[in-house]
Amino acid sequence: MPSAGSTSANADSPDLWAQLTSKRVLITGGLGFIGSNLARRLAAGGARVTVVDSLVPEYGGNMFNLADLEAEVRVNIADVRDPHSVSHLVRGQDFLFNLAGQTCHLDSMRDPHTDLEINCRAQLSILEACRKFNPTLKIVFSSTRQIYGAPRYLPVDEAHALAPVDVNGVNKLAGENYHLVYHRVHGLRTCVLRLTNTYGPRMRVKDDRQTFLGIWFRRLLEGEPILIFGDGAQIRDFNYVDDVVDALLIAATDERAVGEVFNLGAPDFLSLKELAALLVELRDGQGEYRLVPFPGERRRIDIGSYYADYRRISERLGWQPRVSLREGLARTLDFYSQHQKHYWNDDAADA
Amino acid sequence: MPSAGSTSANADSPDLWAQLTSKRVLITGGLGFIGSNLARRLAAGGARVTVVDSLVPEYGGNMFNLADLEAEVRVNIADVRDPHSVSHLVRGQDFLFNLAGQTCHLDSMRDPHTDLEINCRAQLSILEACRKFNPTLKIVFSSTRQIYGAPRYLPVDEAHALAPVDVNGVNKLAGENYHLVYHRVHGLRTCVLRLTNTYGPRMRVKDDRQTFLGIWFRRLLEGEPILIFGDGAQIRDFNYVDDVVDALLIAATDERAVGEVFNLGAPDFLSLKELAALLVELRDGQGEYRLVPFPGERRRIDIGSYYADYRRISERLGWQPRVSLREGLARTLDFYSQHQKHYWNDDAADA
Repeated sequence: MPSAGSTSANADSPDLWAQLTSKRVLITGGLGFIGSNLARRLAAGGARVTVVDSLVPEYGGNMFNLADLEAEVRVNIADVRDPHSVSHLVRGQDFLFNLAGQTCHLDSMRDPHTDLEINCRAQLSILEACRKFNPTLKIVFSSTRQIYGAPRYLPVDEAHALAPVDVNGVNKLAGENYHLVYHRVHGLRTCVLRLTNTYGPRMRVKDDRQTFLGIWFRRLLEGEPILIFGDGAQIRDFNYVDDVVDALLIAATDERAVGEVFNLGAPDFLSLKELAALLVELRDGQGEYRLVPFPGERRRIDIGSYYADYRRISERLGWQPRVSLREGLARTLDFYSQHQKHYWNDDAADA
Repeated sequence: MPSAGSTSANADSPDLWAQLTSKRVLITGGLGFIGSNLARRLAAGGARVTVVDSLVPEYGGNMFNLADLEAEVRVNIADVRDPHSVSHLVRGQDFLFNLAGQTCHLDSMRDPHTDLEINCRAQLSILEACRKFNPTLKIVFSSTRQIYGAPRYLPVDEAHALAPVDVNGVNKLAGENYHLVYHRVHGLRTCVLRLTNTYGPRMRVKDDRQTFLGIWFRRLLEGEPILIFGDGAQIRDFNYVDDVVDALLIAATDERAVGEVFNLGAPDFLSLKELAALLVELRDGQGEYRLVPFPGERRRIDIGSYYADYRRISERLGWQPRVSLREGLARTLDFYSQHQKHYWNDDAADA
């Protein structure tokens, strides 16, 4: 069982774990950031976990994320773009956490077809496999705040218009919609969580492909200044990864989540400049940040300020983020101080 | 020049035709229903028209639609899923009317990957080709009311939530979003029209793959009863194809349309039962209709009643439908009475 301190009341409840212990769970993108943290929690709670991951070098998969759990978690290297692997892997599972995705916004503009293959076509293949071979399993899909585009009001609730500003957002929206259509038309038991910025141990920090925050951690620990694009006044909200794992477990086990869409979010949103200052403070003043002009290709897909209204999941399913930003950042910096060679030394990435 | 009687004031204006006459125009899906009607109008107005069509048997392409214009319109048989053909064909064009699509909702649920290839992947290829080889041409994309899903209020305006109920709707929404993203990020001059039910000469009537109304025309002319699913109380609005051609021409030539989304619609919406009764009346009472239970797979993707609020395009661009439903249906029935062998005799389909 997971330790009480790091989880919300709901994600810790015996009822929830009664549904998961000894059950078969498949996690796509399971060697990645959120997937590996979820796999660790599930394995600790006695679930029979299989992770599937392609280990595409540009994405979040990293063998080190589960290297110490070789006996507990089955690792299956495969690409969700391959419908045959997927069709085999979904059979017999009780839960599917569908987290695999291409996450880099700039890459989606430079190579839109690859983003489409992963975030659209593979999603259809996964859902078709479930429909044909395992129509009763529970499915949780990780969507993203990116599908809202530039907020028209704050905080952004689930009824906000969906106007993605880049190909990644367009395709993630399609992926989300497939999950909802397969619920309504085929009766699949799907749920969609729209994640905001997630951070914590095991994220990709070697560059900014997964999130801008990753490269901030790296630069801070390497003694390089954090670079903030623009004036640093853009507001963001942040979830510590353990809180996101809570939400995934609750969404998977609460029948009221089926067919529904929920935002995640956090009470302590702040500007990027404030975030950078907080990070420097947590390093006892070691480090600095600099404001730099927006590169053109980033400016064109920037969404301005964002923070989520997450009352829906709080009120309906009882989820609440439990780890404060300060605490979460401190834990994350600790983690990378210890394990940096596995996250930004390319030669040792999967040692 | 097109005849004044069949077009709105705007689509007839010398200013509009000054932009089109002698210009190079590419129409994807140009042997299909709307594409061929558009090609005819453009050719009559002196534009240099190339149509590209795959002639996939299940879709709307039909050689007969342009058979009498062999000298005026260049017909290029190719599939928009082939990025190499597309890259070649967009070069040197002044306008692109991007109408190619998989339109059948049921097919999209039975074979979702094919729908994705045409309505998503090919759209990305077309836009990438424009970005690389012809970034200044004007592009009009034909989207669909299907992306709204089941209306939450009537009439449905462009701000209505987008919640498609089938894979076709999900993919058409992605296709629309790509066009908007490529405008905002890459500066392509795109415009999106969300079409409602369109009818008229040259539509597919051999079955209901393109629209339910097609098979109604066929059955009526064959002396078979029109079959209405459910209680026939569902409301729909209908545009005669000449009015849609007006809208396409206006959208392509009015700079205020760039980057914008517009509903099409009509003032005379009515229930399916009323529509069937009107058709029988137009045939001097020859014919009948029957209410039949919804087949399950159709019921699950039905959207209930729909009619559009089209004030935005009326107020901003001056478009108005000009052909009444009664007049349009009469013209359509006349057309198929004369040409039925080219539309539902499979052997003669492209004679």
